[in-house]
Amino acid sequence: MHEHIAAVPLDKAFRLLNHGPTILVSARHDGVDDVMAASWACALDFDPPKLTVVLDKIARTRDLVEQSGRFVIQVPTVAQLELTYQVGHRSLHTVPDKLVRSGVELFGIDGQALPFVAGCSAWLACRLIPESHNQQTYDLFIAEVVGAWADTRVFRDGHWHFERADPALRSLHYIAGGRFYAIGEALDADTHTQG
Amino acid sequence: MHEHIAAVPLDKAFRLLNHGPTILVSARHDGVDDVMAASWACALDFDPPKLTVVLDKIARTRDLVEQSGRFVIQVPTVAQLELTYQVGHRSLHTVPDKLVRSGVELFGIDGQALPFVAGCSAWLACRLIPESHNQQTYDLFIAEVVGAWADTRVFRDGHWHFERADPALRSLHYIAGGRFYAIGEALDADTHTQG
Repeated sequence: MHEHIAAVPLDKAFRLLNHGPTILVSARHDGVDDVMAASWACALDFDPPKLTVVLDKIARTRDLVEQSGRFVIQVPTVAQLELTYQVGHRSLHTVPDKLVRSGVELFGIDGQALPFVAGCSAWLACRLIPESHNQQTYDLFIAEVVGAWADTRVFRDGHWHFERADPALRSLHYIAGGRFYAIGEALDADTHTQG
Repeated sequence: MHEHIAAVPLDKAFRLLNHGPTILVSARHDGVDDVMAASWACALDFDPPKLTVVLDKIARTRDLVEQSGRFVIQVPTVAQLELTYQVGHRSLHTVPDKLVRSGVELFGIDGQALPFVAGCSAWLACRLIPESHNQQTYDLFIAEVVGAWADTRVFRDGHWHFERADPALRSLHYIAGGRFYAIGEALDADTHTQG
């Protein structure tokens, strides 16, 4: 495992997604790996942590998720802007060397038979909770998060530290047409207001 | 309707949520209005636009959504940091004047019998698609977006313009413990990469 990667307690895993970043979904089945970008992923529960992700029927990654019942949700960084756009706009169906062409490097984490994308800021290993109606009707997948890790340079002690980290480690938030926003300034609400 | 508010075409409505902002949910039933904050809302489909939102069983707003079958998802701004935190941490069950205390001003939009929160940057009028299993098991609600509006100072021509608007109009992205991040810098991927 890379030197800056540390496990995140599962009851803090929701915080890795709570600010709504664009994410990468990766999955492996029968020797095939794929990675796609998705904006439509969202925390669903705290403990045990769950999440939702929308996976279109045309995505090869969706097939791998359905076949293996497992996948990784990871949070790409500003440094991965082009990679994120490219894995979102190329299909393994038509571009067999999609991952190499898009600059994706995969790595493993002990005990997880899953492909993790190097250079991201956070990783959530997920186990599919089969819900056939949601999957077929809405392309909506529900999963339990069974492992979580983050790059300690930007997430440690259960909190993001974007404001003190290299700006290249900020999360990406996609809109459309190649336009992303990076996450910005930290703001703290007054938590002492009564009643 | 306020002078800067304009309708957004429904096929562009997903863009109002695509960058993962913290949102406010408002609903009305039988003369009762409530507003809550939520981080767990997400686009689900493009056209007709659909979305998901997680509504905990303890939230009075959830009751109003279930009773009326309608609600509004709106995108609060940096100027509404304290309001957003407060409506997320006070309950109408125990604080009957929650909305006044939290500084919420409601307004109407012609043809919509719904409470809209003034000062937000975008509003999505939603019709619940009843899915009892999701609602009971996961607190997960699915809705169709039947109307969308935005503040033209920050969203127009189908795009956010955070980088050119007053920073007070930026979206909020909640983590935990009163800590939010504002949306930040605009970044454009190279959309001409081939194959």
